[in-house]
Amino acid sequence: MGIAGEDGTGAELPGLLERFSEIGRKNGTGIERLALSDLDATARGELQALWAERGLHVYRDRIGNQFGLVQPLDSAKPLVLVGSHLDSQPDGGRFDGQVGVLGALAVVCGMRDRGLIPSGVNVGAVNWTNEEGARFQPSVMGSSVFAGVLSLDAALASSDTREVRVADELERLSLAGDAELAGRVAGYAELHVEQGPRLEEEGVDIGVVDGTWAAYKADVVARGVQTHTGPTPMAKRIDALYGAARAIAAVHELGLARTDGRLHTAVAWMRITPNSPNATPSAVEFKVELRGPDEELLARTRDELLGLLGGITAESGVAFEVGVWSERRAESFDAALADEVERSVRELRLSTKRMPTIAGHDAVVMNAAGVPTTLLFVPSHDGITHNAAEFTSDVDLVNGEAALAAAVQRLCARVLAA
Amino acid sequence: MGIAGEDGTGAELPGLLERFSEIGRKNGTGIERLALSDLDATARGELQALWAERGLHVYRDRIGNQFGLVQPLDSAKPLVLVGSHLDSQPDGGRFDGQVGVLGALAVVCGMRDRGLIPSGVNVGAVNWTNEEGARFQPSVMGSSVFAGVLSLDAALASSDTREVRVADELERLSLAGDAELAGRVAGYAELHVEQGPRLEEEGVDIGVVDGTWAAYKADVVARGVQTHTGPTPMAKRIDALYGAARAIAAVHELGLARTDGRLHTAVAWMRITPNSPNATPSAVEFKVELRGPDEELLARTRDELLGLLGGITAESGVAFEVGVWSERRAESFDAALADEVERSVRELRLSTKRMPTIAGHDAVVMNAAGVPTTLLFVPSHDGITHNAAEFTSDVDLVNGEAALAAAVQRLCARVLAA
Repeated sequence: MGIAGEDGTGAELPGLLERFSEIGRKNGTGIERLALSDLDATARGELQALWAERGLHVYRDRIGNQFGLVQPLDSAKPLVLVGSHLDSQPDGGRFDGQVGVLGALAVVCGMRDRGLIPSGVNVGAVNWTNEEGARFQPSVMGSSVFAGVLSLDAALASSDTREVRVADELERLSLAGDAELAGRVAGYAELHVEQGPRLEEEGVDIGVVDGTWAAYKADVVARGVQTHTGPTPMAKRIDALYGAARAIAAVHELGLARTDGRLHTAVAWMRITPNSPNATPSAVEFKVELRGPDEELLARTRDELLGLLGGITAESGVAFEVGVWSERRAESFDAALADEVERSVRELRLSTKRMPTIAGHDAVVMNAAGVPTTLLFVPSHDGITHNAAEFTSDVDLVNGEAALAAAVQRLCARVLAA
Repeated sequence: MGIAGEDGTGAELPGLLERFSEIGRKNGTGIERLALSDLDATARGELQALWAERGLHVYRDRIGNQFGLVQPLDSAKPLVLVGSHLDSQPDGGRFDGQVGVLGALAVVCGMRDRGLIPSGVNVGAVNWTNEEGARFQPSVMGSSVFAGVLSLDAALASSDTREVRVADELERLSLAGDAELAGRVAGYAELHVEQGPRLEEEGVDIGVVDGTWAAYKADVVARGVQTHTGPTPMAKRIDALYGAARAIAAVHELGLARTDGRLHTAVAWMRITPNSPNATPSAVEFKVELRGPDEELLARTRDELLGLLGGITAESGVAFEVGVWSERRAESFDAALADEVERSVRELRLSTKRMPTIAGHDAVVMNAAGVPTTLLFVPSHDGITHNAAEFTSDVDLVNGEAALAAAVQRLCARVLAA
C-alpha cells in the first residue's frame, strides 16, 4: 500500500475533517447533520467562510447548492466542479460526504496555489444539498436539480415527517441564492469513502469507479383493518403490520438467498398508521429497494417479490399497493477517462482497482447527465458506514486527496482537449 | 331481543351521542380525540357545561378526571360513580367510551329526577382521563391514578412522541383540579360497547361482565448495526428491522395457531431508529401483547416466543432486549353483584349473557382495586372497533342506558346494605 503526499501536498484533509467533525458530533466519533437543519447550516456557513478566506468566489443556487470557484462566475470558460455533500444520515459517520467536500477545498486551492490549473478552465469546489435523502426525499436532491433531472419546484415542495418543506428551511436559514452554473459544467470529480469492505479486504489504496449498480425502488402500502388488539378474534383480524412484517422479512431474504453477492435488498423506512398500542394497524407504508449489477436479475426479483406479496395477501387478507418502481439503470462511467485517471493515480505509487459504486452519489447523477465524471473511493474499515463507527485512516485520506488532485488535473486536460 | 325504555326512560343516549360525535369527527362516522388534545378539551368542556346545566356539582382531580355529582362533595355519604372515557383512538369510533360517559349523564340525572337515588348514597358521573393510552402510556391512566395503582407523578411525567408531557397538557388546557374523591367511592358502574362480535352473533341484548382476561405485555427492542442499505454485503448486515419483522410475524402467528380462540396476540406499535431510507435500522422498539383467560397458557406462550426470538437472533444476529413483562391477572368481578344486576336487567325484558372482558377498561381497574363494580356491554356490529366503522344501533344504546340505570340502582342498594 502506498502513501502519497511525500512532497508535502495532500496533507490538509485529515485536519479539515477533524475540524468539521465537531459540527453536529454525535455518538462519540459520529456526526448528525440532517440536510437543511440548523447544524447543516452551521457547517455550510463554516465552509463558505473558509472558501472566502482562501480566496474562492462563493455562489449559491436556488436549491442551496454551494460553489467556491477559483475565478469569478462570469468567465466564459468551461467549469470543472469537485465536491460531494456535507449533510449526514441520522447517527451518521464523519467521513461520508465530508471527505469529498473538504478534499475538494484542499485540492482546488492547492492546484491554484501551485499554478496547476490550466488557464482555459475554471475550477470550483461544490457542496450539494441533501445527498442523503434521510430527512427529505429524494436523495441526491441538489445535484439532481442542478443536472436537470429533478424539477426545482418538486424539490422545494418535498417535506419531512413534520410537514416542513425544503423551501421553508432554505428560507428560514437563508441558504439559497440565484446563481446559475449548470450550463458551464464540463467535468465533475468526487472523492468518497467506499462504504463497502472490498478495498480494505484486497489491500487496495484507491477505487476508480467504472460504473453503477442498477437499483429498483418502490413505495409499498400494506392495508389492513384497524380494530382493537384485545377482543377482536384472531381469525377476524386483517393486521397491516403482520402483512408488512412478512413482506419486509421476504425482501431481506431474497437478498440473503443470493450467495454470489449480486443482489442487495432492504427495507429501512416505514410508517405505521395509527401506531397506537391497542389498535391493530390499518396501514403500513414502507420503501423497498433492490440493487444489483444485473437489471434482468432485479426485474426477476421484483416479480418474485410481487408473487410473494400475493401469497401474503391470500393468507392474511392484507392487501399491498405497490407504487411505481423507480428503475435506476446500471450506468458506465467514461472508460477512457477512468483509464487516464487510474494511470495518474498509479503514478503516485498508489494501488488502484476498478469497481462499481453500489450506493448512489452526486457523481452518479452528474455522470448519468452526460458530464465527464470521475469518482474515486478510499477504503472504509470493515465496510461500516451510515454509522458513528465509520472509519477511514489518515493515511487513506491523504492518499485520497492526492489521488483526487491527480484526477482533477487529468479532468482539466480532458476538458481542454474536448 | 327486547327493547327497553317503553315507559319513556332511556331515550337520551342516542341524541347525546350524536351531539358529542361532532367533536373531532373524522373519517365520516368516526372521531379522533386523543387524550389531552385540544379536541379532548373541547369535549370535556361541553360535558362539564352540560353537567352544570343539569344541576350536577362539578369536580376535577389532579390527573384531570372529571366528576359530576348529584350532591356536593363534602357529604359524608358513600359515593357511587358511573362513567367511562371521552378520549378516543386515532381514527377511532364514536361509541368506544362516549357511550359510557353520556349514558352516565342520562342515568344519573334520570335517577335523580325520578327520585330513585337513595338518600344515604351520593351518585356521580365520571369521565376518566386517557383510557386509550394511544398518545400517552399507560392506558387507563386516570382511573389507575384514582385507584392508587399508578402514582400521580409517573402519570404526569408520561410524554408523547413529541416529548409533550401529560403535566404540560393538563396545564396548557387548564384541565386539572384538586378534588379528592377516591376515599369516598363505594361502587362503580360502566356501560361500554363490547368491541367483539359475540353479543351480536348470539342475538343477546346486554353482556354482564363477570371477569377479565389476563394480559402479558412487554416492550421489546431489536438491536442491529446501522449501515448503508446499498454497498454493505447482505452477509455482513445485522438489520434490526429484519429481526423485528420476523419477531412481529411470529407474535401474530402464535395467536393464529390457537384455533380455540383462547389466545389473542398483537404488535400494534413500533419505533424505528433511524428510519432513514438508506440506513439499515440500528434499533426497532415494539410492544408485544398476549391476552387470554388462562394465565398458564400465556406464560407458556411467552416462553415459546422467547425461544423463537432466540432462534431469530441465531440466524440474523439481531439481538432482542425484552423488558419486564407486565402481567395483568385474570380477575373475577363480584359474582353476587353480577347475579343481582343480571336479574334486574332481565326484569326489563332484555336478554343477558355473562361474559369476560378481553379489553382493559376503567371498570377493570376499579374492580381490581376492590371497589364493587359492574360493567355492562352492548353489541358491537361485527365486533369492529377502534375504527370509524364501529357501530351500535340506537335500539342497543337505549337498551344499554336502561340496563345501566337498573345496574346503578342495584349497586346503590348494595352499597347501602354494606
